[in-house]
Amino acid sequence: MTASPDTPLLDRVSAPADLKRMSDAELEQLAHELRAETIAAVSQTGGHLGAGLGVVELTVALHAVFDTPRDKLIWDVSHQAYPHKILTGRRDRIRTIRQQGGLSGFTKRSESPYDCFGAGHSSTSISAALGFAVARDLGGTTDTGAGDAIAVIGDGAMSAGMAFEAMNNAGHLGKRLIVILNDNEMSIAAPTGAMSSYLSRLYAEAPFQDLKVAAKGAVALLPPPLREGAKRAKEMIKGMAVGGTLFEELGFSYLGPIDGHDLHQLLPVLRTVRDRATGPILIHALTKKGKGYAPAEGSADRGHARAKFDVSTGEQKKAPSNAPSYTSVFAKELTRLAEVDPRICAVTAAMPDGTGLDLMAERFPARVFDVGIAEQHGVTFAAGLAAGGLRPFCAMYSTFLQRGYDQVVHDVAIQRLPVRFAIDRAGLVGADGATHAGAYDIAFMTNLPGMVVMAAADEAELKHMVATAAAYDSGPIAFRYPRGEGRGVDMPEQGEILEIGRGRLIRQGARVALLSFGTRLGETLAAAERLDARGIAATVADARFAKPLDRDLILRLATTHEALVTIEEGAIGGFGSHVAQLLADEGIFDHGLKFRSMVLPDSFIDHASPDAMYAAAGLDAARIEEKVLTTLGVDLISRKA
Amino acid sequence: MTASPDTPLLDRVSAPADLKRMSDAELEQLAHELRAETIAAVSQTGGHLGAGLGVVELTVALHAVFDTPRDKLIWDVSHQAYPHKILTGRRDRIRTIRQQGGLSGFTKRSESPYDCFGAGHSSTSISAALGFAVARDLGGTTDTGAGDAIAVIGDGAMSAGMAFEAMNNAGHLGKRLIVILNDNEMSIAAPTGAMSSYLSRLYAEAPFQDLKVAAKGAVALLPPPLREGAKRAKEMIKGMAVGGTLFEELGFSYLGPIDGHDLHQLLPVLRTVRDRATGPILIHALTKKGKGYAPAEGSADRGHARAKFDVSTGEQKKAPSNAPSYTSVFAKELTRLAEVDPRICAVTAAMPDGTGLDLMAERFPARVFDVGIAEQHGVTFAAGLAAGGLRPFCAMYSTFLQRGYDQVVHDVAIQRLPVRFAIDRAGLVGADGATHAGAYDIAFMTNLPGMVVMAAADEAELKHMVATAAAYDSGPIAFRYPRGEGRGVDMPEQGEILEIGRGRLIRQGARVALLSFGTRLGETLAAAERLDARGIAATVADARFAKPLDRDLILRLATTHEALVTIEEGAIGGFGSHVAQLLADEGIFDHGLKFRSMVLPDSFIDHASPDAMYAAAGLDAARIEEKVLTTLGVDLISRKA
Repeated sequence: MTASPDTPLLDRVSAPADLKRMSDAELEQLAHELRAETIAAVSQTGGHLGAGLGVVELTVALHAVFDTPRDKLIWDVSHQAYPHKILTGRRDRIRTIRQQGGLSGFTKRSESPYDCFGAGHSSTSISAALGFAVARDLGGTTDTGAGDAIAVIGDGAMSAGMAFEAMNNAGHLGKRLIVILNDNEMSIAAPTGAMSSYLSRLYAEAPFQDLKVAAKGAVALLPPPLREGAKRAKEMIKGMAVGGTLFEELGFSYLGPIDGHDLHQLLPVLRTVRDRATGPILIHALTKKGKGYAPAEGSADRGHARAKFDVSTGEQKKAPSNAPSYTSVFAKELTRLAEVDPRICAVTAAMPDGTGLDLMAERFPARVFDVGIAEQHGVTFAAGLAAGGLRPFCAMYSTFLQRGYDQVVHDVAIQRLPVRFAIDRAGLVGADGATHAGAYDIAFMTNLPGMVVMAAADEAELKHMVATAAAYDSGPIAFRYPRGEGRGVDMPEQGEILEIGRGRLIRQGARVALLSFGTRLGETLAAAERLDARGIAATVADARFAKPLDRDLILRLATTHEALVTIEEGAIGGFGSHVAQLLADEGIFDHGLKFRSMVLPDSFIDHASPDAMYAAAGLDAARIEEKVLTTLGVDLISRKA
Repeated sequence: MTASPDTPLLDRVSAPADLKRMSDAELEQLAHELRAETIAAVSQTGGHLGAGLGVVELTVALHAVFDTPRDKLIWDVSHQAYPHKILTGRRDRIRTIRQQGGLSGFTKRSESPYDCFGAGHSSTSISAALGFAVARDLGGTTDTGAGDAIAVIGDGAMSAGMAFEAMNNAGHLGKRLIVILNDNEMSIAAPTGAMSSYLSRLYAEAPFQDLKVAAKGAVALLPPPLREGAKRAKEMIKGMAVGGTLFEELGFSYLGPIDGHDLHQLLPVLRTVRDRATGPILIHALTKKGKGYAPAEGSADRGHARAKFDVSTGEQKKAPSNAPSYTSVFAKELTRLAEVDPRICAVTAAMPDGTGLDLMAERFPARVFDVGIAEQHGVTFAAGLAAGGLRPFCAMYSTFLQRGYDQVVHDVAIQRLPVRFAIDRAGLVGADGATHAGAYDIAFMTNLPGMVVMAAADEAELKHMVATAAAYDSGPIAFRYPRGEGRGVDMPEQGEILEIGRGRLIRQGARVALLSFGTRLGETLAAAERLDARGIAATVADARFAKPLDRDLILRLATTHEALVTIEEGAIGGFGSHVAQLLADEGIFDHGLKFRSMVLPDSFIDHASPDAMYAAAGLDAARIEEKVLTTLGVDLISRKA
């Protein structure tokens, strides 16, 4: 395999319709070529590799058998959709994936009619597919017509409550709907939870390599050559009869497990389902994440996400890092605190690695809880831990905390329970793009009574905030920090406990005050230096707290400067809105203040580097300077100086 | 039964410890008295009746067998906790329930040590109980010690994804944990979904009246007198072996079904579980909502919630209504539009009655979808319906939409899918109190790019907004409206399609401009009249839209008045914050404007009448007038005039 593998059959594919003209043997060859092309492309761009390699055969089979885009194929999360993109007219751009201006790393409706429903977050596909199925049956249609609805969902995603809700509803409605359970025994980390054990038992009790296809309620659906074997298997293997019960009890026909890498199984099964299914059916396909690429198969995360790499060795080409990541600073400080305080424990929703809690789990395995993809449960579980006398940290990405919002309100805030929310990936996140932007948490946390909300300006500040949160038992407290590396500041030995609701003055100026909340502090300081060069003396302060606000600091800044500008890495409704409310209430606007609040713009920002995204968002030093100049009415000519 | 039933045994109970001294026969008598007292109390106060009557025996048995409050008893939703309150030292205040200053209609930590975890929203109890169980095993403790964790959850609540997530995690962790499935085949409406059918099959296949207790994995746990019968039953009833499989596959021992009204079953089963359970166990108890009170048992909702009523007849004493409810105006207009547009369909999450969609379902049963208690799925299902070419209305209470927030962001807003959000119970809701306040939706919806957000000022406006939403296909759109009756305004024959982003001027004044978003318009107009009487001419406008803002209107108001005050029924971060951002961006504050934003206060407001709650929140006519006077600097003496 090289950066440009030999792909004679794939070269003939410009759209899925071309697969319809291939023999099964050719499709098998096509799958080999598609795998090689996927590896070659990701080696050049970096991105999600393991998931795509696990569904190469499934992707070929689905597009060969079904009539996409008329049939609606929905990839759950859609990390695994790179091969799908290659087959659906985007091969020429696959080496732009996750790059600025290039293809999205996820399915995206605006990118292709073959991406009928975008994703990024987990466990949405069955709900969406059911929507398409019901719309079709009610006469609804789309630009590409209305056909079958097919959801492809991983075993990790299946354990989320949302997927259960969708299965429960789909089983009740009884519409024709196809769910393919892509069971690779992996989400990003090893999956956790009873559902995962259940799935393991399903195939432990019925190894597919012996019986090819076993099915209970769905035996009648099977094509003739396989049916006899299935019947025999059913009689032979006692456990199997109970096998799909969980899904069958939810109203689905269950078919499987089948080998998701064997087109000799996939093609006839999918064709039969296409031709004969009536109600909801679940096809249980066993796959291997990273399949067919040894360096991925051999790694702990099965090649989940990769930097650019050397195809022959699998070695990744990562840029050297200059500073510790915020995530690791959080994890180390929390682990240090856990050494001295046995009440400290932590909750993650299927992100032990992403949140750094795997580090704490190495030291304290009994005090770190991976609840699976289950943010709703995770937040209320943490509330229960707090009510039970512990000091729980609930570590979630900003974008995923949206899943547990009601629980934050209802179970934590209203009860004033001291749950510590460690909000990782706050602000813009780079290659994952709009679906993963941590844009809303400042607004949706600060408007909750009794919630304390902090943002770290740098990695040392984060350390202080972890210590502050650990020590705070009066109610819920949250601290947010971004993806990526810190600013390289000096690190204290241990975090200090900050005074609640106190910001800090960083530099004293005179004419304009810049008040930052979060890691834009670096850009804010750079803007202040640019302003210095123009003779405009800028005061810079780090708010530290969006709630409670540092009233004294803010009122002092507002009353001793001509202008006050707030800067935050969040959408409107957060820090700047609280500052505006304070200034209004205190009558500061009555007699004039040049107040501006710089927030994320009112648009979803496409994937790019974080720096490029912040420039697009208008939140870098140049734009902060520009905002100050405009606000002060410095005219255009002098600006150019 | 009278308003003061004869209750000799109950009179001896001041705390659950008193139950420990009673014989089983006395406990049976106590249950009768507790039922009578519950009916008598609710007849005087109104409130939730059916759920409590369904768990009278269970409540007695749990407090008799377990060591509350050391053992943590968690009532899911807690509509059913009135008998629990009567037994736990609150009998003397039970006739104040849901009244201002009285007991909460839900469990509440601040109200009693026996309410170890509050509720209001559904399906949180297993997560919380697991938190208590894990905290206990890690050495955590509480003011009342650390004992068993027991969740009591209804069959409707069990179908929510969050409950599944909790079961999945609990089964994996294997901690001692007791879940009692209170299966009455009812949530508020009849339950829906495959899980509900599954539960029905469980007891259809194993009628408990014949076998008393049947159990598969849990047979060894049973007390001797029952064990033989259970073994026999297991052999006899084929379906039973599969019975609890769904729960057993999730790692729980399954015990049941048992008769939840028979203390001869409940007491020995609970004692055995208490003495011998090791890991997580689910006890499946069959109960009857409204049990023991014929008018409740005979009604469609089994006496779910009742106004004050006559005990002998069950007849409710409702105040006559002067205007149609907002809910009914929404439902009627939507049904009217659905007559002419076959693409209109609707989604509710277990609230067909509460949202009024039962009305549309009568006319168009195939176009109204009750997805069960499953807001996450409900929102994305609606997104799928929209992507499939329909015009879905997703009708949810503001407080429950919090459950689907990530789906609103990720599946609807980012994809710009035209889902219509009908946000009922916006603002303060009265007797349901803080857990049900619709306080946050303005903030969490307006900060999403591309979202249109409206609020109805009165019932005629609501009619226009339903029509506007139906006609709007460019992206997502939301409209909010409160609980209760409209203002009695003239109703148009049909709704008009409003211009997006245009407010309306209601009255022209001169000195101060009052800009209302939502139904505070009535109070705002009343405040304007009070101001008139003081010689202060107030302009009043109805914003209609919080997003997009009516820039022209707002800037005109801001530049032609001395002061501008916004009023909304929501927390900070919403309408007023968007107005402030606009004014700041436009430089209006630079030279002075007396701007104030009146929002819900930064506190959770206890249950009372909505009027009393709004007075407490500072959002009635008197407080609006006061705010204007303070803002204008009218001195205190002239104010008294």
